[in-house]
Amino acid sequence: MSKGITSQNEDYSQWYNDIVIKADLAEHSSVRGCMVIKPYGYSLWENMQSVLDQKFKETGHSNAYFPLFIPKSFFSKEASHVEGFATECAVVTHYRLKNDGNGQIIVDEEAKLEEELIVRPTSETIIWNTYKGWIQSYRDLPILVNQWANVVRWEMRTRLFLRTSEFLWQEGHTAHATSKEAIEETEKMLDVYADFVENWMAVPVVKGVKSPNERFAGAIETYCIEALMQDGKALQAGTSHFLGQNFAKAFDVKFTNKEGKIEHVWATSWGVSTRLIGALIMAHSDDLGLVLPPKLAPTQVVIVPIHKGEEDLAKITEFVDGLILKLKALNIRVKYDDRDTQRPGFKFAEYELKGVPLRIAIGARDMENGTVELARRDTREKFTVAQDGLDTYIQNLLEEIQKSIFQKALDYRNSHITKADSLEEFVELLDNKGGFIAAHWDGTPETEQKIKEQTKATIRCIPLNNPLEEGTCILTGKPSKQRVYFARAY
Amino acid sequence: MSKGITSQNEDYSQWYNDIVIKADLAEHSSVRGCMVIKPYGYSLWENMQSVLDQKFKETGHSNAYFPLFIPKSFFSKEASHVEGFATECAVVTHYRLKNDGNGQIIVDEEAKLEEELIVRPTSETIIWNTYKGWIQSYRDLPILVNQWANVVRWEMRTRLFLRTSEFLWQEGHTAHATSKEAIEETEKMLDVYADFVENWMAVPVVKGVKSPNERFAGAIETYCIEALMQDGKALQAGTSHFLGQNFAKAFDVKFTNKEGKIEHVWATSWGVSTRLIGALIMAHSDDLGLVLPPKLAPTQVVIVPIHKGEEDLAKITEFVDGLILKLKALNIRVKYDDRDTQRPGFKFAEYELKGVPLRIAIGARDMENGTVELARRDTREKFTVAQDGLDTYIQNLLEEIQKSIFQKALDYRNSHITKADSLEEFVELLDNKGGFIAAHWDGTPETEQKIKEQTKATIRCIPLNNPLEEGTCILTGKPSKQRVYFARAY
Repeated sequence: MSKGITSQNEDYSQWYNDIVIKADLAEHSSVRGCMVIKPYGYSLWENMQSVLDQKFKETGHSNAYFPLFIPKSFFSKEASHVEGFATECAVVTHYRLKNDGNGQIIVDEEAKLEEELIVRPTSETIIWNTYKGWIQSYRDLPILVNQWANVVRWEMRTRLFLRTSEFLWQEGHTAHATSKEAIEETEKMLDVYADFVENWMAVPVVKGVKSPNERFAGAIETYCIEALMQDGKALQAGTSHFLGQNFAKAFDVKFTNKEGKIEHVWATSWGVSTRLIGALIMAHSDDLGLVLPPKLAPTQVVIVPIHKGEEDLAKITEFVDGLILKLKALNIRVKYDDRDTQRPGFKFAEYELKGVPLRIAIGARDMENGTVELARRDTREKFTVAQDGLDTYIQNLLEEIQKSIFQKALDYRNSHITKADSLEEFVELLDNKGGFIAAHWDGTPETEQKIKEQTKATIRCIPLNNPLEEGTCILTGKPSKQRVYFARAY
Repeated sequence: MSKGITSQNEDYSQWYNDIVIKADLAEHSSVRGCMVIKPYGYSLWENMQSVLDQKFKETGHSNAYFPLFIPKSFFSKEASHVEGFATECAVVTHYRLKNDGNGQIIVDEEAKLEEELIVRPTSETIIWNTYKGWIQSYRDLPILVNQWANVVRWEMRTRLFLRTSEFLWQEGHTAHATSKEAIEETEKMLDVYADFVENWMAVPVVKGVKSPNERFAGAIETYCIEALMQDGKALQAGTSHFLGQNFAKAFDVKFTNKEGKIEHVWATSWGVSTRLIGALIMAHSDDLGLVLPPKLAPTQVVIVPIHKGEEDLAKITEFVDGLILKLKALNIRVKYDDRDTQRPGFKFAEYELKGVPLRIAIGARDMENGTVELARRDTREKFTVAQDGLDTYIQNLLEEIQKSIFQKALDYRNSHITKADSLEEFVELLDNKGGFIAAHWDGTPETEQKIKEQTKATIRCIPLNNPLEEGTCILTGKPSKQRVYFARAY
């Protein structure tokens, strides 16, 4: 335990909250359900954004921006969509305040909107209403657009990053001439997400599709990547939806195809959000604080001088200045903390809390010996290495740390995919081990719902390329052709 | 006139609208007053964001994110602030819709918020309410935070980019231990804005401070940069506010200073918005379309092959592939348009419309002669140059174009700062020449208001380092010690 952080074993949920607060990532605001993302937390989001944005552009997408508000009537045009979002949306009804004459500021009832506006919970409706004006012919397709935006889904119980009434995300919305092309796009973006979450966030994922109960409101098929947290609960890390022609039909978006025939346009949408920061924290961090993968860490290397006097410090600083230049030339994000107001031990604890992957300590004896002391945040190993060639040593070590953090999470995840062949075994595993439980299910929404009610576990996904296997549903005993992954989830 | 663009002389306002629409920058959405920023327009905003964000970081600022919603009571805590914004804000009153039983989706009256939420028109109140928890001692200061966000100010009459109910912007909010430091910050950020607008957007600005009538609601002093459009109207391109202790007092934000005494914190805020895209268009573009400064143009160079057959094209493409590699190595954004579905003339017009600064045309004879034809968008000059050394030639030419566009705007601006010594002269200049009119004013809000009512001109700013000069107010004849800049403005 460090700096008042509850240990994971004692209370995982409280541990999570402590980490978010103590590491200065975010805090609750005075607006119910809305968070303030503090500079350190936001810098993580910026690093994520920058990688994802580049990947979106490399796959041919452009960014655009659509209105925050959606007329209520748009929202209702796709039946299952409104069903999915109507119960949790912020509604704008007026456009002016006024002074009531007694010095109180009140809503001006004369400024009531003719039609209420919904603060976007997602933008399919407003975007497809816009696409109607952009698409006439197959030559106008595909449209490959992404938006970085804030969205609002009114939540009664909130948790920082994981579930907040307002959150930041990106939402891709693409339009295609054929079903095949739209499905390819849906799968391509799922791969982009999986690549990002595994190779940048160092969090292994299972790729799959959702059962009908868990599908996006308005989708034909929802693809997802599911990650496992250290407490054995799953977290949906990203979704990519094949929307078929549902939104094109709701908003009357048609095009003339190559054969001169008029048909409805095919759609996808896909998104990841600031929720990923929650996943990043819960996948790797420990009782001392954050553990960040080097590729996303705002600071990758911190250098702390251990000196007795000004003369020591001057020698150390001279060496460090040269080292920093070399590290920056290798695009390594490095910070030199020579504050004289804090002791080294205080600084060590602070950077452990903040999850800086690599710490370098340099004292007078190190300078004599031509060495430095390195400390890895992930394994907490310390070792002395030569100053000679230190820059490339560090570059390699950061890559090694990135791999090692991923491997650790992968080992944990792989050891937490367990088969269960009866409801008893299923509950036993959920309660005592957690993780993904591969079990047979009869394929009906009713059974999934009953299992959820009895066990709080949901089908996280039907893995892609799932092997076929004859079996019987753990609840109903009805025949089943494949196991699906259940878990309790965030 | 090109592609249905109204000429500037015929109707400047319609010309502007045509450019925005035809160049695919933005369009009106179905939500009253809100625009859709299309991919080409958004890429301009991304280029602007990227430069500004780097400048903010270089001056020590970090990004963060605060809630979209502001409780109504917060909003009212600073008297002049609520006065300035209350009449134009979107109010959230409910958090749920429901089915009325007849298939209609209606607002669920049972889900009425206890306290209405305002969609942020600017974030001083919610941020200072947050800063209260961050600041105890002088050691917690300064706080140098910026936010990229959407804001909403309900507008009855809207114009794409220039005035929309929702717009994108950045808002810096800083907290300081002393008045002096806060004023220095205010001035520093004004300089950052001026540097960006002049050296990236190629739009010359006048730096100054606002008269009390035009001050930000809640500010002690509003600094601004004012630009001049080609129709002689001014446009406020950015503002930086010294807020004194107003918001600290309204939200009770105090700190212990170095002497151990408790005092209120000093504040600044500063912002620029997607309005700058409007300024960019109106400062440089012409009847053929956009004219973009190379530093912000999404595509800086477009290459169009002029070929008779496949053999010609293959030779040209081989050369172009090599050229593109060299240009990209110089960080030049280049596009090769070898579409065979469109003729060169069509492409030329398209890139003129989109404002690509430099066009390269290459035909079979050019390949024989070792030359290419260059065409500048800004001056519409064409000239033939050698293929040898073309990459560095282009690099230099783009710099030359950037300077030339700025110089043209500067010459126009400088020739449109005119002195007027009577109201008659003043109105005559406004009606027939436009631009900034330097005139004496008695310093009272009443006089400024009367001049505005009579002439539609406002005081754009009192220029920084304004020379003192004895004179008499053009309206009242009362004594005045300096001329201030009036203009009709966007």
